[in-house]
Amino acid sequence: MDDIQILIDELVKFRDARHWEQFHNTKDLALAISIEAAELNELFLWKTTEESELVDSTKLKEELADILAFSLLLAGKHGFDVKEIVLEKIKKNGEKYPVEKAKGIAKKYDEL
Amino acid sequence: MDDIQILIDELVKFRDARHWEQFHNTKDLALAISIEAAELNELFLWKTTEESELVDSTKLKEELADILAFSLLLAGKHGFDVKEIVLEKIKKNGEKYPVEKAKGIAKKYDEL
Amino acid sequence: MDDIQILIDELVKFRDARHWEQFHNTKDLALAISIEAAELNELFLWKTTEESELVDSTKLKEELADILAFSLLLAGKHGFDVKEIVLEKIKKNGEKYPVEKAKGIAKKYDEL
Amino acid sequence: MDDIQILIDELVKFRDARHWEQFHNTKDLALAISIEAAELNELFLWKTTEESELVDSTKLKEELADILAFSLLLAGKHGFDVKEIVLEKIKKNGEKYPVEKAKGIAKKYDEL
Repeated sequence: MDDIQILIDELVKFRDARHWEQFHNTKDLALAISIEAAELNELFLWKTTEESELVDSTKLKEELADILAFSLLLAGKHGFDVKEIVLEKIKKNGEKYPVEKAKGIAKKYDEL
Repeated sequence: MDDIQILIDELVKFRDARHWEQFHNTKDLALAISIEAAELNELFLWKTTEESELVDSTKLKEELADILAFSLLLAGKHGFDVKEIVLEKIKKNGEKYPVEKAKGIAKKYDEL
Repeated sequence: MDDIQILIDELVKFRDARHWEQFHNTKDLALAISIEAAELNELFLWKTTEESELVDSTKLKEELADILAFSLLLAGKHGFDVKEIVLEKIKKNGEKYPVEKAKGIAKKYDEL
Repeated sequence: MDDIQILIDELVKFRDARHWEQFHNTKDLALAISIEAAELNELFLWKTTEESELVDSTKLKEELADILAFSLLLAGKHGFDVKEIVLEKIKKNGEKYPVEKAKGIAKKYDEL
């Protein structure tokens, strides 16, 4: 079995042992991702870009894992194939950001 | 090769073709995750929990894919083993939320 | 003097007594707002809409005050007239959401 | 009448003309603040701290106004006195961050 599915299965097992499926509706899972993303960002608040690279690796791993966990739970809830949706998004972004227009430029596609 | 690594490799290829590594510092990658998380949440704004379950599946996939993409790029940048950090977080959360205390209760561990 | 200016002055006094102006660049102030907004949202995570109305009033006040504080500091830093920019935005939103089209409908203006 | 109350009254008038009070529950207003905060942050994504200071002033005003608008609507909904809650939070933060300990240091109070 693939690693992504292994992770989703472990997360679901953790959730179900605690009878938490009742709380894991789509809207609240999305909210949870966003709250975890803010906790990740808090590691860098008031820090320069350079200082931010020196972030405590343990904390970075934990915050990132939280975001991934809720994202995988949400994907699993809707039966999405994570590999497929990310590859499709890369393809779509390739059309929005063609290499010749986007190279070296950090602008949104509608400003390119 | 595992699916997670395949995704990270594809994301890095996409990034490098556009010479975007220069923008992808840790602080801004974290910010990007949080902005994509807000776009995901916008799908559910002013919607009830029930209405939110009926979200357009294509949009949900795309927003989720964006969050996963930046999360994987950040993990890749720091050389993290995604499977390992998520499994470790599940283990740690198991200690913070023991089944007997957390079952059926959606409270933070420090309020249990 | 007006209440908004009184608040900005108090916030600046607090900041300057701690020599924090050096950290309060525009990008990090925006990030701080977003982190405080997530803390506000955490009060409602896994809670129904109805349960959320019964939120602890003290916590709600504090999280809201944090968001307002950083927003006022950012406005003050750029010399914005808070009353003016909010009234202007209301006017602009009135054009994007004309009463006859938007009445009773919670859609984005480009979907109306 | 004070400027803050003038703003809340205008926002409520705008909301009520569109029959939007039904959507403005506490949980969704908090979510709206967080989504607007992300739009503010998007102005600075992939930009250096220095570049961020040169942000388009019109856009900054609009995003900040959106955050303030939903924050004031939430405060108004709960009958909070905005001036009072911000002054109280400043006082409380003064205890968490005493000048002698916090001067020139951008750490959270529990790390000081």
